[in-house]
Amino acid sequence: MNDPHIKKYIFGDPFETGAVVNDVSIETGNPPYIILDKDPSAITYTMGKSDRVYGLGESVRGINKRGWIYEMYCSDDPMHTETKRSLYGSHPFMIVDGEELFGLFIDYADRIVFDIGYESVNTINIRVGAPDYKLYIIEGCTPDEIVSGFRRLIGKSYIPPFWAFGFQQSRWSYYTSNDVRRVIDSYKSDGFPLDAVYLDIDYMEDFKDFTVSSERFPDLAELVESSKRNGVHLVPIIDAGVKIEEGYDVYEEGRDNGFFCKDENGEDFTAAVWPGRVCFPDFLNKDAAHWFGMKYKTLIDLGIDGFWNDMNEPAIFYSENRLDKAIDKVASLKGVNIGIYDFFALKDTVLGLSNSGEDYSAMYHNVNGERICHDKVHNLFGYNMTKSASDAFKEIAPDKNILLFSRASYIGMHRCGGIWMGDNQSWWSHLKLNLQMLPSLNMCGFMYTGADLVGFGDNCTEELALRWLALGIFNPLMRNHSALGTRDQEFYRFENKDAFRSLLNLRYSLIPYLYSEFVRSVEQDKMMFRPLSFEYREDKFAAACEDQLLVGDSIMIAPVYEPNAIGKNVYIPEENMIAVRMRAYDDYTVEHLSKGHHFIEIPANETVIYIRKGKALPLVTPAACTADINPDTVKFIGEFADDYEYTFCIEAGVQNGESIITKKTYKP
Amino acid sequence: MNDPHIKKYIFGDPFETGAVVNDVSIETGNPPYIILDKDPSAITYTMGKSDRVYGLGESVRGINKRGWIYEMYCSDDPMHTETKRSLYGSHPFMIVDGEELFGLFIDYADRIVFDIGYESVNTINIRVGAPDYKLYIIEGCTPDEIVSGFRRLIGKSYIPPFWAFGFQQSRWSYYTSNDVRRVIDSYKSDGFPLDAVYLDIDYMEDFKDFTVSSERFPDLAELVESSKRNGVHLVPIIDAGVKIEEGYDVYEEGRDNGFFCKDENGEDFTAAVWPGRVCFPDFLNKDAAHWFGMKYKTLIDLGIDGFWNDMNEPAIFYSENRLDKAIDKVASLKGVNIGIYDFFALKDTVLGLSNSGEDYSAMYHNVNGERICHDKVHNLFGYNMTKSASDAFKEIAPDKNILLFSRASYIGMHRCGGIWMGDNQSWWSHLKLNLQMLPSLNMCGFMYTGADLVGFGDNCTEELALRWLALGIFNPLMRNHSALGTRDQEFYRFENKDAFRSLLNLRYSLIPYLYSEFVRSVEQDKMMFRPLSFEYREDKFAAACEDQLLVGDSIMIAPVYEPNAIGKNVYIPEENMIAVRMRAYDDYTVEHLSKGHHFIEIPANETVIYIRKGKALPLVTPAACTADINPDTVKFIGEFADDYEYTFCIEAGVQNGESIITKKTYKP
Repeated sequence: MNDPHIKKYIFGDPFETGAVVNDVSIETGNPPYIILDKDPSAITYTMGKSDRVYGLGESVRGINKRGWIYEMYCSDDPMHTETKRSLYGSHPFMIVDGEELFGLFIDYADRIVFDIGYESVNTINIRVGAPDYKLYIIEGCTPDEIVSGFRRLIGKSYIPPFWAFGFQQSRWSYYTSNDVRRVIDSYKSDGFPLDAVYLDIDYMEDFKDFTVSSERFPDLAELVESSKRNGVHLVPIIDAGVKIEEGYDVYEEGRDNGFFCKDENGEDFTAAVWPGRVCFPDFLNKDAAHWFGMKYKTLIDLGIDGFWNDMNEPAIFYSENRLDKAIDKVASLKGVNIGIYDFFALKDTVLGLSNSGEDYSAMYHNVNGERICHDKVHNLFGYNMTKSASDAFKEIAPDKNILLFSRASYIGMHRCGGIWMGDNQSWWSHLKLNLQMLPSLNMCGFMYTGADLVGFGDNCTEELALRWLALGIFNPLMRNHSALGTRDQEFYRFENKDAFRSLLNLRYSLIPYLYSEFVRSVEQDKMMFRPLSFEYREDKFAAACEDQLLVGDSIMIAPVYEPNAIGKNVYIPEENMIAVRMRAYDDYTVEHLSKGHHFIEIPANETVIYIRKGKALPLVTPAACTADINPDTVKFIGEFADDYEYTFCIEAGVQNGESIITKKTYKP
Repeated sequence: MNDPHIKKYIFGDPFETGAVVNDVSIETGNPPYIILDKDPSAITYTMGKSDRVYGLGESVRGINKRGWIYEMYCSDDPMHTETKRSLYGSHPFMIVDGEELFGLFIDYADRIVFDIGYESVNTINIRVGAPDYKLYIIEGCTPDEIVSGFRRLIGKSYIPPFWAFGFQQSRWSYYTSNDVRRVIDSYKSDGFPLDAVYLDIDYMEDFKDFTVSSERFPDLAELVESSKRNGVHLVPIIDAGVKIEEGYDVYEEGRDNGFFCKDENGEDFTAAVWPGRVCFPDFLNKDAAHWFGMKYKTLIDLGIDGFWNDMNEPAIFYSENRLDKAIDKVASLKGVNIGIYDFFALKDTVLGLSNSGEDYSAMYHNVNGERICHDKVHNLFGYNMTKSASDAFKEIAPDKNILLFSRASYIGMHRCGGIWMGDNQSWWSHLKLNLQMLPSLNMCGFMYTGADLVGFGDNCTEELALRWLALGIFNPLMRNHSALGTRDQEFYRFENKDAFRSLLNLRYSLIPYLYSEFVRSVEQDKMMFRPLSFEYREDKFAAACEDQLLVGDSIMIAPVYEPNAIGKNVYIPEENMIAVRMRAYDDYTVEHLSKGHHFIEIPANETVIYIRKGKALPLVTPAACTADINPDTVKFIGEFADDYEYTFCIEAGVQNGESIITKKTYKP
């Protein structure tokens, strides 16, 4: 393939990341727009005063990334405050939209620092860890064109099974089979739809991958089966670390075959995560990856058809080596009248044990027989863990489209699975972050994604849950998940159950639209969630709009993300949008809105969806689970031409592990 | 005094906090509105669906406190995320505004938990640590009336010297005299006004209160003097803990006179803070308080006329006793193959060393000869530290109004000094929190206050600094302060100096208005910063407005608090407000706005001030420092009647440590 809009440059000796599948020919000479330093491990660009910068996938802050400094480095950090530089994924693609318009992708697997007007307000300064990378400059007449060019380069995004668009419930943890049954029963008896319940780390025996606690889940196969009869899929977690334990087959096989990452002496690299001491499968070693991927068969054989891969940055709680040193250091203070800076050093020593660069630097991979330090490939670890599963699924169960998503990721992994937005908090600011991350991730190929509703860490309130759910019903991955020790937040636990039920039903009415728009976005290398600025190119208010999104072809959303609000200011970017005020899928009123700024009153038990001019929103009758959704029940809201028609994408089977998708066109 | 609008109830055996100075007679029978449990350590109230709750002073979240749980417990915690329950002050006064309208003050010095619709959306549940407290129910026809009733009860708020309304620059730390000179020179040479520079902990010799480093500040008296010739006051920090060191007079005097807090054996209670091991002066012991207060004379004699009291929750980094145990615990893990939960316990052990309830419980006070456990009086510690200084100042220098403010506080301390809003972060969300905390603090009597501009912790950006400053110019305490290790943020360091200079000049143009409104608010027991809902009682949009404030009698502000914004949605709550778009104090345009929602474009180098109908904004010619401000240069912006006049409050001298304030009326 060659794309006249993409220019590729190679510097030094780049590690092959696998991000690009439809490569282009290599340019010589200087890349346009940017200035490279001699090395060239730094790239600079001078922005116009009003230039906007998009992209960088899973990052904090707004849709416009300008005014902060970001580091592309997969990091296990649950405190997503607005000044964090790294989250779980590395997605080094960005678009400059202003005096010039271009996209830039730095294909490089170690840390890259993107300073977007932080040090100096008009300067982009990108620092790549080493001058060994591939650089792609993508040109186009619009940001949409640039995104499409980039997405063609990196290949088609993952499409999960249809049921994965249903509502999913998780918690760390449902400890027993009976806990899982109670959750399902509670949702069902309250008349809420539900498609999946998650098994967090405690379903395992001592956190050992591919084991099931015989005490707490003695009947997993039966549980899977009976849940499925209720339309509910069970989705277990798989962690990156394999517990070191004699007699544990996964460990022994990995050890005996040399499938684990090594330390500098060639011994298995060990560190501690949930199971205590673990080894990390070397997912960059093809044989090791295949071996680990095939291990999922154990659970697939029990009827499991969905997985989430976790802790694959990889997260390291501590290494024994460094823990020993830390203990020595602390013990040496015994009886000493330590100064205050010694005390802070002591605190830092203990806090710095986790996810330490020192440990990562001491870890080695075997890539096609070559020893590669982990630093060089850090951002590919979670990607390749997920790829190993994805590849194996086609081998294990080609007749199934098995749900798969990951915490850590790099561009390229978007072809193998989705990601969730990591361990967020029950914060109003994270509701807004959920919205703002959707288009940034779409640009980078990650289509199947969503934030943990209604916040993983910390305690949520009913109002936050309800407001977040009003955005949550648009997340492709719509999962309620919460951490150990936090307030229970299954939706049936709240006081105003009716409001939650209405929203969940509305999700199910929306699913055929969401799924169809999702599939078309993948097929056509488009974004499903678009900033207003991508559509209304000459509109300064649209350009600055950070809290509204176009969702697919027909609608705009503008959720409330502040406590005690009676509504919100909404910018209507075109004449005659129709605001549909929904109390339930079949109980709504419509109002025509002129282009401009409006204050829209939105009680917490209502959802307002904005339909674009000439477009229609297709809604079907809600169902108890996705399997019961009937597209033929579709009704259309909107004002449209007599010849308007809408085509649903419908999952009609599975071939080679992927959904067979048919199209069916409806006329209102 | 008796106020028919205030009902007082006494339960158990309350500790006398000193919060109330104009007391009312005691009621018998059940208090109105609320339900007391038998004990009565719990109070409940059922809110109407749209009731709003105001107050709680220094707390996170919005102006309407509904939907969260707060703990009144002075806490040293710099991570003011939206789910924190406690900050540095305890201000247990709130107003319910809805189906009923009343205020409630729980006068109690240990922890009080205010659940405002957290556990159950319509329930207020207040849990008082022990059933020994005074309860005041305050009634009125409006929230303003309730605030006035409460403020009369607790006495007149502190009025700082006029110069304390000038711009003040701080950093942890300016290490030497020359550093201080450089900061002053830089501001002056760039033409910025400036009235104060702060000395953080490093001006001291080994963090010893009332000492000055002979190496770094060998010439403090001369520095104070020469700075004052530039109109700049130096404001040193005083910490609560006194370093344990033989030969250090403050320590030896405190020890020899028994002026320190004791442990359970009657020995001096020791803990570690900045200086390492310290004792805490027993500020609840009148003799100890007087002794400590008089110590400020050392610095006053050098010409110092302002202080900030810090670390007085009191913050405790660790106690030796608990540190020893922690070290033992960590050392015992040496060579042990610890499990993952042991590791987390280890982390918690080390992290839990600071500000531990266990330490507080082991600390004792001598209150009029009676031994009182610190738990019972925790929230009074910082208050009484600051009172000890305030009382002493009148004795040491009755001819001076010495600036004084504190980090920890309780109601009552508002008579002795101001507070800053604690160790915030360079976060956009903390710009908004600055705005939202102003009215909450005003309700509780704290008038001289402000947030650390432009964030203490973390690194700020130029855009955040500029946007924050546009709010900062309205903070009575207008101080730029930042932490060790963060990016330098003195305003002369940024690229667009002109914009910062314009805003600082605008501050100085506003000072006579701000000072006059401040003084009148104190004199009349009013708020200077009011939520729109307090003025526009029947307006649902005003009621829900969380990001605009009325500032004094004439104006409304609505600052931008989001990155990359081109403006903001502003609710105009009355017909014919005048939006004054200011690029500088003498360069502005005006626009009439109708009642309703407006999107106002606001470039970062402009400030928009909204003038109320029939009112005027008086602006004077800016000056290099407050001493040079000339009220006679006043000009008025606005549309007002022919007989409109505005009265400036003018500091005309000092008597008994307080400003003599005269009034001068101007006609446009």
